[in-house]
Formats: sequence, C-alpha cells, structure tokens
Amino acid sequence: MAYSIQDIATALGLTAEGNGALTVSGVAEPATCGPDQIALAMRPAYAEDLPHGQARAAMLWQGADWRALGLEAAILPPRPRFAMSGLSAMMDPGQGYAPGIHPSAVVDPSAILGTEVSIGPFCVIGPGARIGAGSVLGPQCHIGWKASLGDGALLHAGVRIGARVRIGARFIAQPGAVVGADGFSFVTPEVSGVERARESLGAEGTDAAQSWARIHSLGAVRIGDDVELGANACIDRGTVRDTLVGDGCKFDNLAQVGHNVVIGRDCLICAQVGIAGSTRIGNNVVLGGQTGVSDNLVIGDNVITGGATKVLANVPAGRVMLGYPAMKMDTHIESYKGLRRLPRLFRDVAALQKAVSKLVGND
Amino acid sequence: MAYSIQDIATALGLTAEGNGALTVSGVAEPATCGPDQIALAMRPAYAEDLPHGQARAAMLWQGADWRALGLEAAILPPRPRFAMSGLSAMMDPGQGYAPGIHPSAVVDPSAILGTEVSIGPFCVIGPGARIGAGSVLGPQCHIGWKASLGDGALLHAGVRIGARVRIGARFIAQPGAVVGADGFSFVTPEVSGVERARESLGAEGTDAAQSWARIHSLGAVRIGDDVELGANACIDRGTVRDTLVGDGCKFDNLAQVGHNVVIGRDCLICAQVGIAGSTRIGNNVVLGGQTGVSDNLVIGDNVITGGATKVLANVPAGRVMLGYPAMKMDTHIESYKGLRRLPRLFRDVAALQKAVSKLVGND
Amino acid sequence: MAYSIQDIATALGLTAEGNGALTVSGVAEPATCGPDQIALAMRPAYAEDLPHGQARAAMLWQGADWRALGLEAAILPPRPRFAMSGLSAMMDPGQGYAPGIHPSAVVDPSAILGTEVSIGPFCVIGPGARIGAGSVLGPQCHIGWKASLGDGALLHAGVRIGARVRIGARFIAQPGAVVGADGFSFVTPEVSGVERARESLGAEGTDAAQSWARIHSLGAVRIGDDVELGANACIDRGTVRDTLVGDGCKFDNLAQVGHNVVIGRDCLICAQVGIAGSTRIGNNVVLGGQTGVSDNLVIGDNVITGGATKVLANVPAGRVMLGYPAMKMDTHIESYKGLRRLPRLFRDVAALQKAVSKLVGND
Repeated sequence: MAYSIQDIATALGLTAEGNGALTVSGVAEPATCGPDQIALAMRPAYAEDLPHGQARAAMLWQGADWRALGLEAAILPPRPRFAMSGLSAMMDPGQGYAPGIHPSAVVDPSAILGTEVSIGPFCVIGPGARIGAGSVLGPQCHIGWKASLGDGALLHAGVRIGARVRIGARFIAQPGAVVGADGFSFVTPEVSGVERARESLGAEGTDAAQSWARIHSLGAVRIGDDVELGANACIDRGTVRDTLVGDGCKFDNLAQVGHNVVIGRDCLICAQVGIAGSTRIGNNVVLGGQTGVSDNLVIGDNVITGGATKVLANVPAGRVMLGYPAMKMDTHIESYKGLRRLPRLFRDVAALQKAVSKLVGND
Repeated sequence: MAYSIQDIATALGLTAEGNGALTVSGVAEPATCGPDQIALAMRPAYAEDLPHGQARAAMLWQGADWRALGLEAAILPPRPRFAMSGLSAMMDPGQGYAPGIHPSAVVDPSAILGTEVSIGPFCVIGPGARIGAGSVLGPQCHIGWKASLGDGALLHAGVRIGARVRIGARFIAQPGAVVGADGFSFVTPEVSGVERARESLGAEGTDAAQSWARIHSLGAVRIGDDVELGANACIDRGTVRDTLVGDGCKFDNLAQVGHNVVIGRDCLICAQVGIAGSTRIGNNVVLGGQTGVSDNLVIGDNVITGGATKVLANVPAGRVMLGYPAMKMDTHIESYKGLRRLPRLFRDVAALQKAVSKLVGND
Repeated sequence: MAYSIQDIATALGLTAEGNGALTVSGVAEPATCGPDQIALAMRPAYAEDLPHGQARAAMLWQGADWRALGLEAAILPPRPRFAMSGLSAMMDPGQGYAPGIHPSAVVDPSAILGTEVSIGPFCVIGPGARIGAGSVLGPQCHIGWKASLGDGALLHAGVRIGARVRIGARFIAQPGAVVGADGFSFVTPEVSGVERARESLGAEGTDAAQSWARIHSLGAVRIGDDVELGANACIDRGTVRDTLVGDGCKFDNLAQVGHNVVIGRDCLICAQVGIAGSTRIGNNVVLGGQTGVSDNLVIGDNVITGGATKVLANVPAGRVMLGYPAMKMDTHIESYKGLRRLPRLFRDVAALQKAVSKLVGND
C-alpha cells in the first residue's frame, strides 16, 4: 500500500503541492513521522513538531506554507478532518483475514453466499442465511437461520446475527456485536408495582410478590445500508414487528438498542448509550456517550445529547440536551452553576430571614 | 405452527369468540396483518388500524365489539399483555438450532449430558460439566469445568459459563452473556487513596504510588430456576462464597453483577444496570435501565428505580427511587423542578437583598 | 492444593500461630467452614460466626486471641485484605483448561508460540502473531494478525485481540473482552451540528442532513505488563498512533476505552466506565463504576471518582470527584443536600418576598 502524493490527492479530489511523485506507505504524527510516511498536521500547532520527525510530505490546512515547513510535498484540504476519511481508508492495512471459506466453517447447504465472500474459521452460517457478494466474516461469527447480510459486509471476530435479521449493504460490525437478541419484555399476571409507579409518578410501589412471564420476541431487526456496530454492542429484535435502524447509522461499543426501537438515518450513537424499548429516534440524531433514553419516547431530527444525558421525556427536533434529567444544554449549564452556589444561597436567605425578622420586630 | 383460534384460547385459559375453527400461523400489528395472522389490537386506538390490514381474527380488550370491527373471530383477555406472553410463546419460530450434538462440538468425556440435549457447532463442554435434559446450546458456547445447567436451558450463540457455576432449570441466555468471570477485587500493600477517600467522604486523596495485587475469586455463581440473562451481560463469581441470583430473575443486555452480590427472587434488572460487589438486593426489585448500585448496600424488597438512578445508600423496602444520587421519586421531581427555576431564585434573592438593605438603611 | 498453615504463612511472609502442620485445602467464611478449610474472619464481627462452622484454622486480624476462638492454628496479618491476595492465589483452582494446543485450534504457521503455551479448542491465532511463554488461552479466543501477547498471559473464553495489538506480560482477560476494535471516528463533509453545538455550548443545532464518513483506525493498542481486562470490556485502537495503557492497570467488566486514550500506570477502572477518545488519564487513578469521562480531557494522577461520576472537564491531580457534572466530592455532598431542601427554600423566599413587600408598603 504505497501511494504517490499525487495518487492520494487525486483520490481525495484535491491538488498535490510540490513533488507529487513522492511515495508514502503510511501516515504518522509529525514527531514520529518517517521519510516514507505522510505526516498529519492539520493545525498550525501540530506542524510545530514536524522538525522532530523525518516527514517529507504532510497533510496540512488550507493556506499552509508547506515549503517553509521544510516539506517536499503537501496536500492542503479545505476540511482536513474530512480528507482524513479518504486518506485513512487508503492506508488501512486491515485485519489480515484470509480470503475464501475456511474449511472449518460450518455453512448450511441451504445458505446462499454471494461471490468473493470470505468466511473465517469456526464461523457458523445457518440454514437459509444469505451473505452478500464481497462480504468478509472474521473468525467465530454466527449468522442465524434465514438472516441476511447485504453486499460488502465486514464482520470482525465473534459477531452474532440472530435468525431472520435483515441487514443492508456495507455493514461493519466490531467483535462481539449482537444483532437480534430477544427483547426484554416481561409481564406479571396482575398489575405490577412498576405499572402502578408509572401511573402515579412514584408515589406507590407494590406489596404483591409476582413472577415474570416472558413475552417472546416474534419480530426481527431490519438494518439499512452503511451501518456500523461497535464491539459488544446489542440491537434487540422487536416483539411483533421488526426493530428498525435506518441507513448510515453508526453505533459505538457497548451501545444498546431495545426492542421495537425505530432509528432514522445517519444517526451517531456513542459508546454505552442505551435506548429503551419502542422509542423512536429521528434522522441525524447524535447521542453522546452513556446517554440513556427511556422507553416509548420520541426524539426529533437533529437532536444532540451531551455525554451521559438521561432523556426521560420527548425531545423536539433540533434541541441540544444535557444532564439528568435532560434539559436544554444552556438551561442545564445555568442551573448547575446555581447548584454549586446553593450552599451560599441558603446562607444568604438565612441572613435575610434574620434581617427581615428584625425589621418586622422593629416595626 | 398453525393454530385455531380455539386452540389459542384454550391454551391461554380464555374463551374464543366467533369462528374458533379459523386458523392462524403468526401474529401481526393491525395495519400489516394478513388473513392467516392474528392481529394484536389490545387498545381501542390500535383497533382503528384493523381496516387497513386483512385481519380476520384479533386479540382485543375485554368488552371489545369484535363483530363491529369486521372480524370473524376474537379473543378478549382480561389482561391482554399477560395473554401476549402465552400467545407469543406459541407463535415463536425460534432460532432454528439443529437437534443433537454437532460433530464439531468438543464435549469432555467426563461431562454428563441429559436426554435430548442439543449442542451447536464449536461448543466446548468442559470436564465434569452437567447439562440438564432438553437443553439447547446454540453455536460457540463454552460450559466450564464442573459447571452445571439445569433442565431445559436455552443458550444462544457464544454464551460463556465459567467453572463451577451452578444454574437451575429453564435458564435462558442471549448471545455473549458471561457467567462466572472473576470478581474485580484488588488491594494495595498499604492503605490506598480509595480507602482514605471513603473514610473521609472525599476530603483526602492519596500521594503514594502503589500497585494493585489481585484477590482471586474462589467462589462461583449460583443461579436459581427460570432466570434469563441478556446479550453480553455479566455475572461475576464471588470471592469466598458464591454470588447468588434467586429464582425468576431477568437481566437485560449489558447488565453487570459484581462479586458476592446476592439477589432475591423475581427481580427485573434492565439493560446496562450495574450492581457493585457485595450488595444485597431483595425480592421483586425492579432496577430501571442504566441504574447503578454501589457496593455493600442493602436494597429492600419491591424497590423500583427509574432509568439511570444511581443508588449510593441503602434503600428501604417498597421505595420508588430516581436520580443521582437516588432520591424518592416524588422528592426528586420536586427538587429538579426547583433546580430548573434556580436562576430565577438567585435573581429573587438578589432583589430581596437590595430591598432589605434599603429598608435597613431606611430604619 | 492442600497446604499447611506454615506453608501459607511462609508464602505470605507472615508467622503461623499454633499448629503450623495443620493442612487446609480451601478457604471459607466462618459459618460454613469445614475442618479442612481455613476460615476468613478478618474482623472481630466475622469471628463471631466461627462457632457455627468447623474451622480449626483461620486468618484473623493482628492481635486476635485465636485460642479463645477455639482454633488450633491461625495467621494474624497486619493488613488482612492484602494477605488475602496471596492466600487466594494459592487456593485458586482455576478454570481447568487443558495443557497444550488443542487439535481443533487454527494456528497460522507464521505465528510464534512461546514454550509451554496452552491454546484451547477453536482458538484462532493469526499470521505473525506472537504468544509469550507459559500463556494459557481458553476456548474460542482470537489473536489477530501480528498481535503479540507477553509471557504468562491468561485469556478466558472468547477473548478477541485485534491485529497489531501489543500486550505486555501477565495479561489477564475475562470472557468476551475485546482489544483493538476500530475507534469510533466519523466526519461529515461539511461542519456538523455537533461541531457547532460544541463551539456554542449548545445554543445551536443543525438543519443540514449529512451522512457520516468513516475515519479508519490505523493505530493499534499498546498495553503494559500486569494489566487485567474484565468480561466484555473494550479497548479501541488509535487513529494514527496507538491507544496506550500503562503497567498494572485493571479494567472491570464492560469498561470502554476510546481511541487514542492514554492511561498511566496502576489505574483501577471499574465496571461500565467509559473513557472517550483522546483523553489522558494519569497514574494511580481510580474511576468508580459507571464513571464517564468526556473526550480530549486530562485527568491528573491519583484522581478518584465516585460511582457514576460524569467528568466533563479536566481534573487536577489528587482530586476526589462525584456527580454529574463532576464536582469535588465535598462540594457535591453540600450542593445535593441543598437540592433536597430546595422546595423549602422556594417557600422561604416566597414568604420573605411577602414580608418585605409588606414592609415596603408599610414604609
């Protein structure tokens, strides 16, 4: 994977500055950059480290004086972070999974495999499963009965796709991700304490001891194109209909999506986020790490939550939220400033009470 | 799996209305229901969609006028959600795991398998392990040395049961669930900053740099009957005695139970809940998603926590809790209303101070 | 694994009291202790249960009158919890993994295995991988292309180590742990709502619908010696350089470490903690269960966070933090006392307003 600076610039739709024939075979930070790597110094502060390394070429910012930085070649993208996407794709050495179907894999005769599929050791492909052309499955994956994966999927080690799950093209899943576990749905024979507490906003618990009966998840999960799923993340199947995830959604490690949830397109769901059952999430929503969203809520398009926001009520489109319970971010910041100053406020009010009581006495 | 409406009603202990001989082979929501499915419309609002589908039979609410809804048959359960439990069990097509012991599975000769056990490809059953009659293990599971599973277990792909863990009858575990990992227990040679901070409620940290020595987990995990464990959920082994989980407890995905924890019977532990070491949880407790419970606490029977509640102190039986730190739910709602109005309160107090200072000056 | 009390005392660098020749083959709590076990009763309160069991020997506290407790032998460590570390290591029966390389394991011919390595059934060792001498891999593990494990590693079932990850000596990983999943790094073609919300602290969301482009993770993960990783915990690879974890760090179950994170030495990262991308954590830091740390922060040495602390800003060395957003623990306790009393404060201020308005009217 060696590329000339000209190759890279062309691939990114940009212009090569200087010696476009210079070839590089990797990327590096400025201080540790070797002569055969391209340095990433996308802000002036980072470029200060270039003299400590051996970079001859760099990706910089627009307008950077690359000659003054001692470089032979440069690429000056208008949005360097976006250029990094294309550059990193070119330079990714990948995981080195072998091509073809490993002889140890157990592929049901009724499974349908597309062309140029790679299936790693100890994978299990269930009856009636479909795997799209060009897909790569790392070792120890399981694709359940009648589940389907679109073209160009990349599953890392130990990914589990349950029965009847349908996934679009270019799906990427990190190790241990699980799609299609049963939803968490239980019911007591009589009205339970939880149901009563919800009705009354907490005033009443329960005395009766009851056991939980299982509601089976008869739905599956349907996932659009270009979706990614982090390590050990989980998306549960629906109760009657399918749990739905739209095109372009990305889920980080240990994220959890409950049964019947509907997620729009191009959402970013960060690590350890939990979305409880039957909640609907709009398009282009970003949920910060450890965000929690209660069940049966509606989150509008373009909503953004800060880290660890706990959403207990519907959120209108476009809102930026923070805190537990979630508030508009600016309200939150104002309120918590107040919280820190509360002890002083109590003292002030006590002083006022004293002063007023004296005044009243004086009257 | 086709059943007549009469079959279903009988199985649920209910009465079939109309043409009990009508057969259905699945369930559906009203709008998408086919002529061979039973529609679920357990509230009048849902029934409005029946004309958009082709349902001939439905599960409705008690007293529903099924004829007026254009149906040929109906079941009118007194508690429809509970009836859904039995109906969904009848209609569940399952995961399609093949019967018998897959030739690729590695079963130690000293393991004891009950009758009619199914063991999937690439499972590993350790020495001295016991698997109860009628149990089904999906692919790629591991049952450790001397671990035991009761009758009728259902383990989905990649479940790991550690050495000496003992589990009762009818255990269900979703993919990637782990029972019997080591507890997280470490100690420094000298008193550590954590120990000092706990003593002093945070006033004092530590300066000394110490390394952590491991305390091995010599106990195992003992789990009762009818317990379920979600995808990638974890229950750790105890230090000296076993971690204990009572009959009928249900754990959702990514839940975490620390070493030495004792959980009573019929608890519902929602997704991403964490219960720290040595805490005791009563019976019929419900912990909402992302709840955290600190170590060495006692949570009484019938306690309910709202989503993301962080429990830092003991909770008496029957309480409904919310927030971080956890408060009684009604106190929490009152306090957080105040928090949102804090900026105004600061302004009010400032105005009062001004007025009083003027009055004092006037005196 | 039977040891005399003298053997145990010697191994722990302590003195045996009484009959040092007495042998024990396990540890137990006082009430359930058999005659061939050593009871753990490290506080006087625990010793009260000794008469209910059959203990002949016990580990007690310094100065304990073991004869009066009816024992034949005892060990009286100055720091019993630390002595428990050595004792539990001696008594640990382990997981019973078989020695040698299981014939079902797929080991690439270019992988380099140290002496006396054990590799369980259905493990996959990728090309160019290195496994240090004396390492034990449980069943169904995956070691990626060119990844390396130091001497004396212990990997339980289903651990996944990605390509090019380098790990030091004596690494322990619980089932389902993942090292080297891709970082969660995405970028939109134009400036996104998240970027704008960060700039403005939440005042402005976004209207534009954009899709996310992937930034590939070209770095790996580098982990020092004596590190432990909990069940289903995740450490992501870096974008350009490696994610770094120092010697002696311990991670509990379901912990999450983002791309480019740098963690010092001897940190304790409890269950379900999340550390977002590019954050730097000092030495001897302890993060309580469910702590969250935002991206690009700096957490100083010896910082301690209480359970579920959400760190949204840098924390200087030595601080003890609690809450969301994180505050110094003593400030937090003071502020939240105030929060609970807020409803009363509102009433007090309303009363003051009335009194003052009357006084002003009286004037």
